[in-house]
Amino acid sequence: MKIKVLKDILGANEQLAANNRELLDSNKVFAVNIMASPGAGKTSVVLQTIRALKDKVRIGVIEGDIASSIDAETVAKEGIPVVQINTGGECHLEANQLENALNNLPLADIDLLLIENVGNLVCPAEFNLGEHRKVLIASVPEGDDKPFKYPLMFNTVDALILNKIDLLPYVKFNVNTFTKTVQNINSKVEIFKVSCTTGEGIQAWAKWLNAQMKQR
Amino acid sequence: MKIKVLKDILGANEQLAANNRELLDSNKVFAVNIMASPGAGKTSVVLQTIRALKDKVRIGVIEGDIASSIDAETVAKEGIPVVQINTGGECHLEANQLENALNNLPLADIDLLLIENVGNLVCPAEFNLGEHRKVLIASVPEGDDKPFKYPLMFNTVDALILNKIDLLPYVKFNVNTFTKTVQNINSKVEIFKVSCTTGEGIQAWAKWLNAQMKQR
Repeated sequence: MKIKVLKDILGANEQLAANNRELLDSNKVFAVNIMASPGAGKTSVVLQTIRALKDKVRIGVIEGDIASSIDAETVAKEGIPVVQINTGGECHLEANQLENALNNLPLADIDLLLIENVGNLVCPAEFNLGEHRKVLIASVPEGDDKPFKYPLMFNTVDALILNKIDLLPYVKFNVNTFTKTVQNINSKVEIFKVSCTTGEGIQAWAKWLNAQMKQR
Repeated sequence: MKIKVLKDILGANEQLAANNRELLDSNKVFAVNIMASPGAGKTSVVLQTIRALKDKVRIGVIEGDIASSIDAETVAKEGIPVVQINTGGECHLEANQLENALNNLPLADIDLLLIENVGNLVCPAEFNLGEHRKVLIASVPEGDDKPFKYPLMFNTVDALILNKIDLLPYVKFNVNTFTKTVQNINSKVEIFKVSCTTGEGIQAWAKWLNAQMKQR
């Protein structure tokens, strides 16, 4: 978090988010804000989603990180347009950063825009970017108690991907307890159990996402 | 992150951190600020550290979370003094919150104070609490690329616990690459490879921590 006057920043952010939404809609781009803890598998989900959908829709990616361009380089190998945002210390993306990134993407050639937020279960939940859907990736090794500790994040998303289900035999994690806790916090959320390592569950997630694009 | 004027907050925090340090020192309490991603195993490390050291030193715990008191309840079962701080939305602990918690602990009866920060690899690194040592817990399932993405956190700590090494056979994680990356960012850091599930490596960490208490 940089030191600056943050008063009214959420109000200003909402205005910029509305502008972004207008720009996205005028270009018929469907945008998804992907949030998670560090290491939950955001980039792996982005890669799997690209592979599942790239024959059906034209995809673009925005990678958000405090530092480095590792993820953007990984995604670029898939041959799709990608922009890296380095927040330089900020623990979340804000709408003005997204605006800047959108201006550096060929929006007319993109149907689906995957936005990977900074790894953090707190502040990203508070900042709208102008996206059409918010998605949270939780991962099995993080434990099934996370919804109690980060309730705003679990409450704010349209879909929840539970990643790394291939590790269920090796860690304590009760899928039923987790699912019920999440549904108590957020009764509308769609939950997908996936493994980016084995590919299990990816098709169900990709099918849902593709259907959402048609509803906008 | 709550909406408020944050200008100069770091300066004010430093003053309160110095006050906390004075209070800790006058009570001969050695305080450790434990930071990590959500689900990396902070509470598990706290529990293992209590079990390894409670016959040698008197331990107290402060649990920091946005919401819930799950962790404090878990720690209380070990029969040691514990205070839960709920930040109510803030993504990190600040020195004023620690001051409040210190006033609710029997400091004269504590030698070692373990402070579990909010699960977040970004902002906790920016706020001194008055602690004597900062410790980061990274975990194997998060991946070996995290030091590139959260350099301030990896640079700011005295010790790094690499937790969940029992999962190394099941995930892609190169321990040598990770160790070298961390040492390039932070040449002074002590690295401990542990598993809170099997107990491997806990004795080495506890021995180091106990020795640090004597150096203050």
